[in-house]
Amino acid sequence: MIRKSILLTLLVVAVTGTHAQVDNTFNLMPVPAHLTTSANKLYVNQRFRISVNGNPDKRMYAEAGRFMRRLSNKTGIFLDNQGYVTMQDSSRPSQLLLKILRPGKLQLGEDESYSIETNPTQIVVTAPTDLGGIHALETLMQLLSIDETGFYFPGVSIQDKPRFAWRGLLLDVVLHFMPVDVVKRNLDGMAAMKMNVLHLHLSNDQGFRVESKTFPRLQQVASDGIYYSQQDIKDIIKYADQRGIRIVPEFVVPAHTTAILTAYPEFASVKRDYKLQRYFGVFDPVMDPTNEKLYPFLEKLFTEMASLFPDKYFHIGGDENTGKDWQSTPHIKAFMKEKGMQKYMDLQTYFNQRLLPIIRKTGKIMMGWDEIFQPGVPKEIVIQSWRGNEDYYKSIRLGYKAILSYGYYIDLIQPASYHYLNDPAPDSANLSDAEKKLVLGGEATMWSELVTPVTVDSRIWPRTAAIAERLWSPKEINNVDDMYRRLDFASADLEALGLRHESYKLPMMRQLTNGMDTKPLEVLTSVIEPLKIYERNQGDTMYTVFSPFTKIADVATPDQKVPRVFNKEVDEFLTHPSSEIEKNISEKLLLWKENDASFKLLLHNAPALDEASSLSENLSSLASAGLEAIQFIHDHKKAGEDWLKEKLSDAAKAKQQGGRCEIQVVDAIQKLIQRAAVGN
Amino acid sequence: MIRKSILLTLLVVAVTGTHAQVDNTFNLMPVPAHLTTSANKLYVNQRFRISVNGNPDKRMYAEAGRFMRRLSNKTGIFLDNQGYVTMQDSSRPSQLLLKILRPGKLQLGEDESYSIETNPTQIVVTAPTDLGGIHALETLMQLLSIDETGFYFPGVSIQDKPRFAWRGLLLDVVLHFMPVDVVKRNLDGMAAMKMNVLHLHLSNDQGFRVESKTFPRLQQVASDGIYYSQQDIKDIIKYADQRGIRIVPEFVVPAHTTAILTAYPEFASVKRDYKLQRYFGVFDPVMDPTNEKLYPFLEKLFTEMASLFPDKYFHIGGDENTGKDWQSTPHIKAFMKEKGMQKYMDLQTYFNQRLLPIIRKTGKIMMGWDEIFQPGVPKEIVIQSWRGNEDYYKSIRLGYKAILSYGYYIDLIQPASYHYLNDPAPDSANLSDAEKKLVLGGEATMWSELVTPVTVDSRIWPRTAAIAERLWSPKEINNVDDMYRRLDFASADLEALGLRHESYKLPMMRQLTNGMDTKPLEVLTSVIEPLKIYERNQGDTMYTVFSPFTKIADVATPDQKVPRVFNKEVDEFLTHPSSEIEKNISEKLLLWKENDASFKLLLHNAPALDEASSLSENLSSLASAGLEAIQFIHDHKKAGEDWLKEKLSDAAKAKQQGGRCEIQVVDAIQKLIQRAAVGN
Repeated sequence: MIRKSILLTLLVVAVTGTHAQVDNTFNLMPVPAHLTTSANKLYVNQRFRISVNGNPDKRMYAEAGRFMRRLSNKTGIFLDNQGYVTMQDSSRPSQLLLKILRPGKLQLGEDESYSIETNPTQIVVTAPTDLGGIHALETLMQLLSIDETGFYFPGVSIQDKPRFAWRGLLLDVVLHFMPVDVVKRNLDGMAAMKMNVLHLHLSNDQGFRVESKTFPRLQQVASDGIYYSQQDIKDIIKYADQRGIRIVPEFVVPAHTTAILTAYPEFASVKRDYKLQRYFGVFDPVMDPTNEKLYPFLEKLFTEMASLFPDKYFHIGGDENTGKDWQSTPHIKAFMKEKGMQKYMDLQTYFNQRLLPIIRKTGKIMMGWDEIFQPGVPKEIVIQSWRGNEDYYKSIRLGYKAILSYGYYIDLIQPASYHYLNDPAPDSANLSDAEKKLVLGGEATMWSELVTPVTVDSRIWPRTAAIAERLWSPKEINNVDDMYRRLDFASADLEALGLRHESYKLPMMRQLTNGMDTKPLEVLTSVIEPLKIYERNQGDTMYTVFSPFTKIADVATPDQKVPRVFNKEVDEFLTHPSSEIEKNISEKLLLWKENDASFKLLLHNAPALDEASSLSENLSSLASAGLEAIQFIHDHKKAGEDWLKEKLSDAAKAKQQGGRCEIQVVDAIQKLIQRAAVGN
Repeated sequence: MIRKSILLTLLVVAVTGTHAQVDNTFNLMPVPAHLTTSANKLYVNQRFRISVNGNPDKRMYAEAGRFMRRLSNKTGIFLDNQGYVTMQDSSRPSQLLLKILRPGKLQLGEDESYSIETNPTQIVVTAPTDLGGIHALETLMQLLSIDETGFYFPGVSIQDKPRFAWRGLLLDVVLHFMPVDVVKRNLDGMAAMKMNVLHLHLSNDQGFRVESKTFPRLQQVASDGIYYSQQDIKDIIKYADQRGIRIVPEFVVPAHTTAILTAYPEFASVKRDYKLQRYFGVFDPVMDPTNEKLYPFLEKLFTEMASLFPDKYFHIGGDENTGKDWQSTPHIKAFMKEKGMQKYMDLQTYFNQRLLPIIRKTGKIMMGWDEIFQPGVPKEIVIQSWRGNEDYYKSIRLGYKAILSYGYYIDLIQPASYHYLNDPAPDSANLSDAEKKLVLGGEATMWSELVTPVTVDSRIWPRTAAIAERLWSPKEINNVDDMYRRLDFASADLEALGLRHESYKLPMMRQLTNGMDTKPLEVLTSVIEPLKIYERNQGDTMYTVFSPFTKIADVATPDQKVPRVFNKEVDEFLTHPSSEIEKNISEKLLLWKENDASFKLLLHNAPALDEASSLSENLSSLASAGLEAIQFIHDHKKAGEDWLKEKLSDAAKAKQQGGRCEIQVVDAIQKLIQRAAVGN
């Protein structure tokens, strides 16, 4: 799943966002639709209890119990032994009352709304379904506050519901497998951010990741022994269900099928010795749509797979067929000619038309990537758009339901602000009300070429929380600064919940430095980010599934706070200089300048860091130039032409990658250099 | 499993250890039986390959592949795509050749020996079985070294084999459940330390943790929904098998059975409304040995459970029966009288005699805690000793096979040095050669009253590595300082392998401080340890299975390095004062003295840390006293009586617990205070 061509244009989209009024957002993420505050503080003490009224699904009790445990863990208070919340608790006095009308059905479009009203002695959550009740509990966890007396829930009146019904995360478990516990901790994170669809990408060229009892060669020959048992799948589904999260499976056909063809080569277009693909990219192997035996095979396989997943939607991929294996095969060319097909996509449309009744027969609705859309395909299908605005709006205007993933490719190491301002139904699109209803929502996509179970959290979180807010909150909630302020809290909460986007770093750094002080490495990695878009895996030939992902580019994370804050400070300094901000900037520059000497000492004992040596040097000379520039500005002196030329050359050099990473403060320091040469 | 009475005496055992010659230990843990070095360095580059000759079990190939992955992750070198090592690789040139004679059988007493010889161009591992081959790979991972050229394997000649055949870790998954991924990462840690038995404690008063198809009420009613599916058990066994680790299951009878009796109350001695126990301790519920229906029930249940675990040994617990429910029940008293039984243990012996043929019929060998030993029971049984030396040696002298756990209770927060010097067959015991053979080995016991999946690693590691060495290496390897030196490397390696005994701390500290700077908390926790032995859970009534284990006592870890080093420095200072060591000590004391002010600032935003407020204050005044003492000593002045009295009173105060923790530098500072009052 490389999706390269169009995505390379993404970076030109401007990151601005209006500066809407920020009001009553507390530290909440996503921000609720309506919130007002009251004076009814409710302190948490050991007698805190929950009761549940009405007729919820049993998941409400399980989640209420989990809430009690989290509350206890966060506050350190030994709650009076209400370990599990049961129906028997409904009649007992409580500090938190959940009133749930009916069991929620875990399906697209179910009511997820809720309200919270704080009375002087009780918090009352009201929701049509337990799905709303679950969201209310997450809101309350985030509202939990502290004053000199202790932990309390602030007085609020909240009426909340999602803007979009489909708020998803795609997790690719093929390119790198993700064990069940990784999936579970990310489900916890999704629930905390009120996301409700986990899209599992389960087959591709590198493997088939679900046990099949019908076609056991799929796991025996086409998985390297790394796959989910059917019991694992049940376990994941149960875990997700409790949190109000649907699981949508994806099995890609007809291309991206090297794994399936390794197990069952008789369905390939070209006879070859198929082996699991170890590289990442777009490859030629593709199923042969002219082989009549293919359809009974797919019917059996998809019937078995569909039976494992209760969700109504079944994703068949359909993307990135090169067409080469079709165009080079005489009997396929002959077939196309006979049927009057002009281009290979016509043959893929034919394949999809044969597939559609098979998917229907399993009781599911077919969905796929942009490529499955061809004028004339039935309106029931759902299109997931990765290729961007044009195709996306085209299908919507033609009456197709769509999910936006373009702009939510979190594997591309872009900042949260970029994803945050990417709206699935922006005013600028001028969609009619009917068209707006066709926009189901969006999905962040975690393709796993360059991540492992150890690093994957750091590519998902915290940025995906910003996408979750875009998909849940009113579109007017779009203040980037306030989003970043709240993202810090969300990030800490997610770590406390078990995600490891921060805590994975220290052991990896200790390994990189072979037990030496990690400080110089921490300083360097705080101002660098892995190469963005698809640059890190140059030419798709650097990395394989066996490559080490334990290097500086894996410790470096996207959207680093240190350069974000520094860049803002430099802008502030250049427009409204003050001695305080000059001091802030200078201290950082000095740290970076001096860090290189300590970093160099590390290298004697850390060969794996050699590749970052130039990064550290460049950062040092760049920071040095920045300090000189500040001195010029401070002294109201003008730097000479030679100085400018030399320092700009340093800055240009500092833009070069090292260890597949880039320094993120070059532009800001370049601004300082240029200002120094202007004089004032 | 509280095992309290006798264990309270443990602390009086002196921690000394002879200072044997330390030679050729590199950073290896456990130290091999024989090691000599040579000049044949072998550098690792991208062409590094493994080949396997001979006739190993297939686990050898899987482990060789895992070795390649670990080597790549540790060095950062992109190895040429030998992702999986297969039989086809046997004929290709390689830098590491594994010569394995025959498939290892994963059973007690199998040959685990291996040798490593480094030639100028190749490392050759020779082993009778793949189990030895696996150990050799772990030795090589630890030998991996660095010089200015890069990573290399030093030239060695190693002949190694274990001293004991049973080198176990008991993991209690009942008192707190441990998910499959927690078990797996600990299996990785065990394999790294050449341990070969994971003893899973699977039922107790708080739950029954394995899915039973015969008696499904066990998981439905007696597990809170938290248990291993049979698929999970298979998965764990397979994972362990690949690493050469046996899985021994334990199902405790006849006491510690509240969970089983909750599901099947008809087998209880006393009719009660049984509910899962939420507290920890020793309770009265016990099965009724006079009920003839009990034995067919146990036969069915144990036959099903035994079939899940391929290992030959089956642990039936048998410990901590209070006898009260038997003595208070007329028909049981009548039964005892009729059979001429004097005390309740006679009835337990009767029960065990009835159980033995049932266990035999499943094809297993029965094992249990000390209590199952009664003169006359068949010699085939294996006794696991928790009550200490007397019972242990008694059963050995009577010809019974035994495993030592007394002295390896890692839940008791004692230092590694204590466990390290606890020998299962010390010279002082004067065992005959025949008796020595009855000593199978030992097991560290991780009882989980006070640990969760998040904190459990920090109670197991790194201390268990010292126990692993005791059980593997020659008994002459007992230099405590060298053990601690190597333990630091082992600890870092274990974290890189995925254990989280260090990295769990930061997210927990961030939660405790609610996002404030964690530094003051880090300083405080570096010199405190949780209360030892059974003091933390005072009276067994403070904690339940639902209590928060997210507090300062959970962030504090056993056997802290900072106080260990400080205490040594103080001793050094008092015997051989130097300005350097005075400076070291003074800097630490100053840090601790001044830390309290920063810690107090935290408290405004961290109510959960209030309980540690006195600890921080006491540390500060204690450190202050230490600084004054050093000044007196430095100036060769004598402190006055009043000063001494006041400071000793400060020291006494500093011994008080806070947040269920104790300061670990009180004694050392007290020594400084006392010396100051002596003058010199």
